[in-house]
Amino acid sequence: MSPSRLAELLEAVRRGELPVPEALDRLRDLPYSELREAKIDNHRELRQGYPEVVFCQGKTKEQVREILGYMIRERTHNVLATRAEADLFAAVSDLHPELRYNPLGRTLVLAREPPTAVGEGTLALITAGTADRPVAEEALETARLFGIRVERIDDVGVAGLHRLVAYLPVLRRARVLIVVAGMEGALASVVAGLVSSPVIAVPTSVGYGASFGGLAALLTMLNSCAGGVGVVNIDNGYGAACLAGAILRA
Amino acid sequence: MSPSRLAELLEAVRRGELPVPEALDRLRDLPYSELREAKIDNHRELRQGYPEVVFCQGKTKEQVREILGYMIRERTHNVLATRAEADLFAAVSDLHPELRYNPLGRTLVLAREPPTAVGEGTLALITAGTADRPVAEEALETARLFGIRVERIDDVGVAGLHRLVAYLPVLRRARVLIVVAGMEGALASVVAGLVSSPVIAVPTSVGYGASFGGLAALLTMLNSCAGGVGVVNIDNGYGAACLAGAILRA
Amino acid sequence: MSPSRLAELLEAVRRGELPVPEALDRLRDLPYSELREAKIDNHRELRQGYPEVVFCQGKTKEQVREILGYMIRERTHNVLATRAEADLFAAVSDLHPELRYNPLGRTLVLAREPPTAVGEGTLALITAGTADRPVAEEALETARLFGIRVERIDDVGVAGLHRLVAYLPVLRRARVLIVVAGMEGALASVVAGLVSSPVIAVPTSVGYGASFGGLAALLTMLNSCAGGVGVVNIDNGYGAACLAGAILRA
Amino acid sequence: MSPSRLAELLEAVRRGELPVPEALDRLRDLPYSELREAKIDNHRELRQGYPEVVFCQGKTKEQVREILGYMIRERTHNVLATRAEADLFAAVSDLHPELRYNPLGRTLVLAREPPTAVGEGTLALITAGTADRPVAEEALETARLFGIRVERIDDVGVAGLHRLVAYLPVLRRARVLIVVAGMEGALASVVAGLVSSPVIAVPTSVGYGASFGGLAALLTMLNSCAGGVGVVNIDNGYGAACLAGAILRA
Amino acid sequence: MSPSRLAELLEAVRRGELPVPEALDRLRDLPYSELREAKIDNHRELRQGYPEVVFCQGKTKEQVREILGYMIRERTHNVLATRAEADLFAAVSDLHPELRYNPLGRTLVLAREPPTAVGEGTLALITAGTADRPVAEEALETARLFGIRVERIDDVGVAGLHRLVAYLPVLRRARVLIVVAGMEGALASVVAGLVSSPVIAVPTSVGYGASFGGLAALLTMLNSCAGGVGVVNIDNGYGAACLAGAILRA
Amino acid sequence: MSPSRLAELLEAVRRGELPVPEALDRLRDLPYSELREAKIDNHRELRQGYPEVVFCQGKTKEQVREILGYMIRERTHNVLATRAEADLFAAVSDLHPELRYNPLGRTLVLAREPPTAVGEGTLALITAGTADRPVAEEALETARLFGIRVERIDDVGVAGLHRLVAYLPVLRRARVLIVVAGMEGALASVVAGLVSSPVIAVPTSVGYGASFGGLAALLTMLNSCAGGVGVVNIDNGYGAACLAGAILRA
Amino acid sequence: MSPSRLAELLEAVRRGELPVPEALDRLRDLPYSELREAKIDNHRELRQGYPEVVFCQGKTKEQVREILGYMIRERTHNVLATRAEADLFAAVSDLHPELRYNPLGRTLVLAREPPTAVGEGTLALITAGTADRPVAEEALETARLFGIRVERIDDVGVAGLHRLVAYLPVLRRARVLIVVAGMEGALASVVAGLVSSPVIAVPTSVGYGASFGGLAALLTMLNSCAGGVGVVNIDNGYGAACLAGAILRA
Amino acid sequence: MSPSRLAELLEAVRRGELPVPEALDRLRDLPYSELREAKIDNHRELRQGYPEVVFCQGKTKEQVREILGYMIRERTHNVLATRAEADLFAAVSDLHPELRYNPLGRTLVLAREPPTAVGEGTLALITAGTADRPVAEEALETARLFGIRVERIDDVGVAGLHRLVAYLPVLRRARVLIVVAGMEGALASVVAGLVSSPVIAVPTSVGYGASFGGLAALLTMLNSCAGGVGVVNIDNGYGAACLAGAILRA
Repeated sequence: MSPSRLAELLEAVRRGELPVPEALDRLRDLPYSELREAKIDNHRELRQGYPEVVFCQGKTKEQVREILGYMIRERTHNVLATRAEADLFAAVSDLHPELRYNPLGRTLVLAREPPTAVGEGTLALITAGTADRPVAEEALETARLFGIRVERIDDVGVAGLHRLVAYLPVLRRARVLIVVAGMEGALASVVAGLVSSPVIAVPTSVGYGASFGGLAALLTMLNSCAGGVGVVNIDNGYGAACLAGAILRA
Repeated sequence: MSPSRLAELLEAVRRGELPVPEALDRLRDLPYSELREAKIDNHRELRQGYPEVVFCQGKTKEQVREILGYMIRERTHNVLATRAEADLFAAVSDLHPELRYNPLGRTLVLAREPPTAVGEGTLALITAGTADRPVAEEALETARLFGIRVERIDDVGVAGLHRLVAYLPVLRRARVLIVVAGMEGALASVVAGLVSSPVIAVPTSVGYGASFGGLAALLTMLNSCAGGVGVVNIDNGYGAACLAGAILRA
Repeated sequence: MSPSRLAELLEAVRRGELPVPEALDRLRDLPYSELREAKIDNHRELRQGYPEVVFCQGKTKEQVREILGYMIRERTHNVLATRAEADLFAAVSDLHPELRYNPLGRTLVLAREPPTAVGEGTLALITAGTADRPVAEEALETARLFGIRVERIDDVGVAGLHRLVAYLPVLRRARVLIVVAGMEGALASVVAGLVSSPVIAVPTSVGYGASFGGLAALLTMLNSCAGGVGVVNIDNGYGAACLAGAILRA
Repeated sequence: MSPSRLAELLEAVRRGELPVPEALDRLRDLPYSELREAKIDNHRELRQGYPEVVFCQGKTKEQVREILGYMIRERTHNVLATRAEADLFAAVSDLHPELRYNPLGRTLVLAREPPTAVGEGTLALITAGTADRPVAEEALETARLFGIRVERIDDVGVAGLHRLVAYLPVLRRARVLIVVAGMEGALASVVAGLVSSPVIAVPTSVGYGASFGGLAALLTMLNSCAGGVGVVNIDNGYGAACLAGAILRA
Repeated sequence: MSPSRLAELLEAVRRGELPVPEALDRLRDLPYSELREAKIDNHRELRQGYPEVVFCQGKTKEQVREILGYMIRERTHNVLATRAEADLFAAVSDLHPELRYNPLGRTLVLAREPPTAVGEGTLALITAGTADRPVAEEALETARLFGIRVERIDDVGVAGLHRLVAYLPVLRRARVLIVVAGMEGALASVVAGLVSSPVIAVPTSVGYGASFGGLAALLTMLNSCAGGVGVVNIDNGYGAACLAGAILRA
Repeated sequence: MSPSRLAELLEAVRRGELPVPEALDRLRDLPYSELREAKIDNHRELRQGYPEVVFCQGKTKEQVREILGYMIRERTHNVLATRAEADLFAAVSDLHPELRYNPLGRTLVLAREPPTAVGEGTLALITAGTADRPVAEEALETARLFGIRVERIDDVGVAGLHRLVAYLPVLRRARVLIVVAGMEGALASVVAGLVSSPVIAVPTSVGYGASFGGLAALLTMLNSCAGGVGVVNIDNGYGAACLAGAILRA
Repeated sequence: MSPSRLAELLEAVRRGELPVPEALDRLRDLPYSELREAKIDNHRELRQGYPEVVFCQGKTKEQVREILGYMIRERTHNVLATRAEADLFAAVSDLHPELRYNPLGRTLVLAREPPTAVGEGTLALITAGTADRPVAEEALETARLFGIRVERIDDVGVAGLHRLVAYLPVLRRARVLIVVAGMEGALASVVAGLVSSPVIAVPTSVGYGASFGGLAALLTMLNSCAGGVGVVNIDNGYGAACLAGAILRA
Repeated sequence: MSPSRLAELLEAVRRGELPVPEALDRLRDLPYSELREAKIDNHRELRQGYPEVVFCQGKTKEQVREILGYMIRERTHNVLATRAEADLFAAVSDLHPELRYNPLGRTLVLAREPPTAVGEGTLALITAGTADRPVAEEALETARLFGIRVERIDDVGVAGLHRLVAYLPVLRRARVLIVVAGMEGALASVVAGLVSSPVIAVPTSVGYGASFGGLAALLTMLNSCAGGVGVVNIDNGYGAACLAGAILRA
C-alpha cells in the first residue's frame, strides 16, 4: 500500500465518506496477507525499504512451500529465502523455473526483475578465511537482491596482514564494509582502524573449542578498540546485508 | 599529515632525493606523537574522520593529565575525554578555562572551534528510560563534537508504546538512529521495525539481577528480528556516536 | 482419592476404628500407582487440578509404553504425553484406536471425554513467528485438554507492529495470554505493555547464533520493563499452559 | 484519559468537527506528561490497571525528585518508588509529610487514599529465609498499594520441610502465591507441587559463591518439575506483585 | 604390589642387596602395566580401594578392546567399563562369555567373583524421575561391583512430595544416599533436609532448554540450603558410587 | 522434641485423648520457635545431627541480634554464626561474655559445653595456599563445634608437590578429608588420587581474572579424574564441615 | 620470496629502475597465491618459520581439494592438513600417492622431504588419558613435520601420580613440554610444578557434563598456580605444536 | 638444597651410613620452611629456576609481613611480592630500607643482588593501550628480577596499525614477546602473524561492558588464527614473565 493511497483513505474518513469501522477493516487487511501458516508483511517495503524475506530455519517444508508459493503466485517482487537446506530446495524447486539455490549460502532466490541500485557507493564484503564463506554468501545474495554493488575480498585474516594491505584501495573506496570472521574475529578491529566508513562486523561460528560457537568472535567485535563498528548476530550474513542496505539508502 | 604531503614524500623517494632510511624515519615520526605514557594517533583524523579521543577508565590521573595537557598545548583540535569521573575533572580542570565537564555523561570537552557539520541528515538519539540517560549523554557529547545534528527522544520504552508512536515523524526523518536501552532492550527491535534508516543499538547495564550487567539487552539487540540493526558494546555511547558519524559521513 | 474419602479415613483413626499402621498403609498406597518404571501420581488432580502428564524425553520407548498402557487400561482420564517423537508414536499407537499424534507439537493425546471448561475467560495464544509454532502447538494441545478456551494469534513479531495492533481487541479481552517468541523475544514486553491481564512468556530456541538456544529470549522476557509477566522455561509450551490453567482456575 | 473520552474524541473526528492534525495533537498530549527528565505514563492505569511506579536505580537524586515532585503535586494517585536507597529518601522526604520509607524493602510510599481491593482472593507471600526478606518487603509494599490482601509465611526453606507443612492450609486457600527464595530456590517447586493456584517464583541473589548472584535460584525455578510456576527477574519483588495483581484482577 | 612386598624391597636397598638403579626399575614397573594404548593402574586398589575402571567415552573400539582384553586375560579382578555404547559392546563381547551389558546404564560388567561387602550400612539410590534412570543404572552397576548394598527409590521428584514421604524409613536407615535428579534438581535439598547421613547429589542433563545440559540442577545442588550434601559431575553415576564406596569404607 | 515424645503424642491421638486439631497445634508448635524475624528449627538436631546455625550474610544486625539473643537466652546448645563481619560482632558481643569471634573465618562461636566427639576417625583439613585460609577457618570452627577431630595441613598446593607428599601419612590415616583450594583447584584431584577415604572439595574464590570468582576451581573439582570426591559450594567451608560430620557420623 | 630478493627489489625502487606502481604490483603478487577459493600465504615461512597449513573444518571438499591440489602441484613444500574427516581424505587421496592419513589425529600429511630439525632440545608430549590421544596425535603430526624431536608420555593423569613420577627424567630433560588433558586438566599444573622448561597446556573436550566441552580444563590451565604455563585453545593440538616450534626455534 | 647434596644423601643411604627413616626426615625438612602462616618452597629454584614469589591478594597484612620478614631475614635471595596494595606496602616497608614499591604494577621488590641474565635474547613487552600498563608493569618488575632483558613498546593497539608497524624491527629481533591487551585483545593475533618467535598473550580486564572483566580478550587470544601464541590468565603479568623466563632459559 503506497503512502499516497494511505493519505487518500485517511482523507475519506475525514470527509465522512468512509465509516470508521470500515476504514479500520481496510487498514487491517492491507498491510499483510494472512496465510494459514504465516502473515506476509506487505507493508515492510514501504517501512523498511525491502520486501519480507523467508527465514526457513525452524519451519517445516510444508510451511515454507505455502509461504513461497503465495509470494511467487500473488506477488511480483523478487523473492529471497535464507537458511534453506538442500532438501528444502528439492521440495520447492517446482514452484518456479527460475528459482535458484546457492548451496554454500543456503539461499533461495527468485530474481524476476533486476534490483534497483541502492544509493551510490559500493559495499566491500570481506572474509577472514575460506571457512567463513557460507556466511558471506548469504550476505552476498541478500545484498545483490537489494541492489547493492559488492566488491569481495576473501581470505585476508590478520595472521597474514600483507594480504589485507594489498586491498587497501578497495577498503578505502567502499562506502560501507562487511567483515565476516570467525575464530578470534580480530579482522573487524583491524579493518575499522584503516577506514573511515562504517564497518559491519559478522562473527561466525568457525573455530576450535573456545570459540564457543562464535561467542569469541562476537565479543571481540563488540569490544573493538577501533570506532565505527556495528555488530550483528553470529553467522547472520543476511542481517549484515540489511544493515548495509539501510546505510547506503540513508 | 595530509595525503598530499604523503604523496610528495613518496615522490621524493622515487626521485632519489630522499634516502630510504630517512624516509622511514619521517614516516615513523609523523603519524603519532610519542608521550611518556601514550602515543597520540595524529593520523587518525586522516584515516577515520575524527581525532583520537581519550578513554580515561583504567588510566591514572597523572596519565590523563599528561595526555590532555599535550593535546591542549600542542594541538588545535577540539578535545574529548570519556569515562572521566568527577575527581579526574578536578585534577585537570586547570589545563584550560573552557574545559567543560558533563557529570551525567562523564565526559570532558574542550570545544575550541565549532565542529564542521557531518553530511546532511540528523541523528535521532532515543532512550528507553531515564536511567539510560548517562549513556545517551556520552553519545550526545561525542556526536555534537563530531558535528552531528541530534534530535533527542527520551523515556519511550516499550512498556508504553504510545509514547514512542507519538514520535514517529522524528524517527522517520532521521538518517540514522541510536537506541539506548537497558533491561530487556526490546526498544531497538521495535524502532527498527518502524524505520528504514540504520539503527545503532546500545545495550545498557541498567536493570535487575538477570540483566547480568547488560548482557540481556545485548543479546536482545543482537537477535533483533527486525533488520537494519548494528550493535555496539554495553554502555558504549561513545562507540555508537562514532558509528553514527561514519554512517552520516559515508 | 477424593477429599471426602480422606476426611472419612482420618475420622476413622480418630474414632479408633482404624489402627494407625493400617491408616498409614492406606494413605501410602492411594496417592500413586507404582509401576516397574515409574510412579503415577494419582493424587495430583486433587492437589493441582490436572492429571499427571507423561514427559517422554529421556524415556525409552519401553518405559513410555508401560506408563501409557497403564494409564489407558487402568484409568479413565484423558491422557497427554509431550515431547514424543514420531517413532515413539509408532511404538505406542496400537494402545488405543483414538490416540492422536500432533507431529508439530510432538504431543500424544487420548481425549476420551470432553474436558470440563476451566473458569470463564479465554486464553490468547500468540506467536512471534511461524518457527515458534511447535512450542505453541504443545501449549495448545495441553490447554485444550485442560478445558481452556483458546484464541490464536500467529506470526505477529515486533518487526511489524501493525500486525499485532490489528489484534488489540483479542489481546484485551483475554483473561490470560501466552506469548511464544524466539530470537530477541521482545514481543512479550510489548504485549504486556498493552494489556492488564497476566502474560505468560515462553522463550523459544528459534534463532541465529547468539540466541544461544533461547537464552537471549529468556533473558529478554525476565527483564521485561512491562509488569505482569511470568516466564517459563525455554520451549516449554506445556508449562505455559499449566500456568494458564492455574490462573484461570484461581 | 478515560475510554469514554477517547470514544468521544474519535466521534468528533468522524463528524468532521475535529480536524485530523488537531486530533493527533490531543492524542499525543494526553497519554503522558513530559517532564524534563522523564515521561510519566498517565495512560498506564487505563491499560494495565495500576499507575506508573518510579524505579529509582540508575537515576540521580535530582531526576527522582523531579518525577516524584510532579506526581505528588499534579496527580492525586498513590505513589510508589522502588530501589530507593536511604540517602535518596533523605533527599525527597520534604516533598510530602506522609511519604513513608521502608529501609528493608527500599521502597517509598505515599498512600493518600486506601487502595481499592483487587478481586476476591488472597496472596500468600512466602520466603525461604530471613535474608530473602528485603525482596519480599518490596513485593509486600507493592501488593498493598495495589489493594491485594496478603498473608505472609516467612523462613520456611526446604531444609526443614515441617515448617512449610504447618502452613499448608494458608498455602491452599491462597488464590495466588509468591515464593521468594535464594540459594538453590527449591522452595518454588515444592510449593507448586502442593497447590493448584498459580505460583510466582522470585529468585533472590542471596547465597554463597556458585549462586552467581541469583542465577542458581533462577534456573531452578525455570526448570521446576511442578507445573503452574511463572518466574520473574532476580530480586524483582515489585514485578512479582504486579503479576499477582494481574492474576487477581483477571 | 602389596605393602609388605614394598617394605621388603626397601629393606633390600638398605642392606645393599639391591642396587639403587635396579630398585628404581622395579618400582617403576610394578605399579602399572603399560599397554600400547594405556597404562593400567595396578596400584589403585591398594591406594583407593577399588580397581581401575575403563571410561570408554572418547576411546576407539580398538583401544577399549586392547585394554579390556588385557584386564580379562592377565588379571583376575572383576571388570567394569562405563559409557559403553551398544556397538562397542558388540565389538568386545567375544572377550569373555560372561561379559554383561546394561544398555540403559551403558555399562559393561564382568563379575568373576562376588564382590566383598563394603562396611555395614546400605546405600539409598534415589531418582527424581524415570528419565534419570540411565544415570542411576550406572551408579547401581558400579555400587554392586564395589560390594555396596543398595536400596532403590525411583520417581519421587518434589512435584509430588507424598511419594517421597512414603519412603522416609528407607531414607533414614541408609548410611549414605545418592540423589539423581535433573530439571531443577530440588530433590537433593529436600532429601538432605530429612536425613542425617551424607547425601551425594548427581545432577542429570534431563530437562527443557534452560536446564542447559544439567547446569541448572548442578547449581541447585551446589547451593543446597540443607547441609551434608556433596555434589559430583553432571550425569556422573559412576563417580557418585565411588564416593559412596569411600564413605562406607571410611 | 524427642522421638519418644512424638510417639507418645501420636498414641494419645489414637486413644482419642487428644483431639485432632489440638494434636496439629502441638505438632506445629514444637519443631520450631517462631521469632519475629525467623523460625528457629528446633527439630534439626533430631533430624540432621547438629543444631541450626545462623547464616548472617544478607541479614540486618537487628535480625541477627534477635535470633542469636533468642538462642543464647532460651536454649542451652552451643551457638555458631557464619559470614559475620567484624561490625556485626561489635553489635552482638554483649549478648554473652564468652561469645568468641574469628576474624579470618568470620565466625561467631559460643561454646557453652565441650562438643561430643563424632565417630572415631579424624578429618584432614588441607589448604592449597595461605589465601584459602579464611574458608578453612570457617570449616575448622564448624568442625570443632560438631565434635570433629581435625588435623590441618596448610599451603600444600600442587605447584610444589613435595610439600604435599611429606604429609602422606596424615592424608592416609584420615577418615575424611577436606581440600580447600582456589586458582585451578587441582589439589582435590591429586589428593583424591592418593587416598581411599572420601574427599570433600571446597573451591575458593581466590585467584586471578579467569578464576571467575571460584568457577574455575569449582569446575576442576567437579571434573576430578580421581574418584571419591564430593564438591560443595564456592567458599563454603561451613558446608564442607557439615558433610564431613555426616560422613563421620554415618 | 626470500629476504634477499626483497632487499633487491627495494634497492631497484631507490635507484629509479623500478617504477613505484610496478613495485607495488610485484610486492602484492609475491606474498600469496590467489586461488578461486583461498589465498595461500607464501610469505608465512619467511615470517613465521613454517608453511601455511590447511585447516579443513568448515571448508567443503571442493575447497580443500583445490587448495591441496595447488600446494601439491605448484609448490615443493611438505603439506599438512588438519581437522580432516575420513571422507575428506577419500575425496583427495588421489592427489598424490604418498598422501598419508592419520584417522585418530584427523591429519593429512605429504612428507616429500625430511623436515629440518628445529633447534636442539626435545619436546615431551604428555597426555592425561587415552581419550586425549586424538589431540595429541594432531600435535605429534604437526611437530614431526616441523622437524621437532618428540618424546611421548601417555596416560599419566593425576589420579595416579606414580605413573607420572616414573617419567620425571624425561620431563626434566625436555626443552619444552606439551600437556594434553581433559576432564579437570590438573596435569598441566602438576607438570609445571616439576620442571623449569615452558609447559604448553592443551585442554581437551574429553569429560562428563560439567566439563562443558573443555571449558573446565581450559579454566584450570589458565589458573595454574605453577608458573611457566602457556595455554592454547581447546583441542588445539596443532596450535600447541606451533608454539613448541616457536619456542625451540627461539 | 643443591642437586649434588641430594646425590650425596642418596649415596649415604645406599652405603648404609644413613638409615632410611633419617634420610626421609632430612628430605622432608629441606625443601621448604614451615612458618606459622605458610610454607616457603626453598626447592623451587632448583626445580623451576626462580625463587618463590609472594602473591599478596587474599592474604592479611600480618600473613604477608610474616612471610616477607622471614624471606628477608633468613634468606639471601632477591624478593618479589605481587598484587600488593599501597596500604600493604605501608605495613611492611620497615622490613628493609631498600624495599621498593611500584604503585602502578602493585609490586614489592627487594633487589639485593643484580639478577643473573637469562639466556641470550630479549623480551619485547608490548601493550595495546595506556590502561594496560599496570599489568605490563607487573610483568616488567618480574622479568627484570628474573634477569630478562626487556624492550618495551607501549600503546600500539590495532586501531592504529601504523604505530605497531614502526616497531617491526624490535618485534622481529625479540626472542620472545609478551602482548598485553584488553578490550578485544586483537593485538596478540596481529603480532603473532608478524613474527616467528613465541608470543605470550596476556588479556587484561580493561574495557567496556561486554569485555566481561577480560573474558573477551581472553577468548580472542585463545582463538588466535595466527600460530605460536600461548595465553596466560587475565591480568596475569607475573605469569607471563614466568613463561618468558622459562622460554629464554630453555
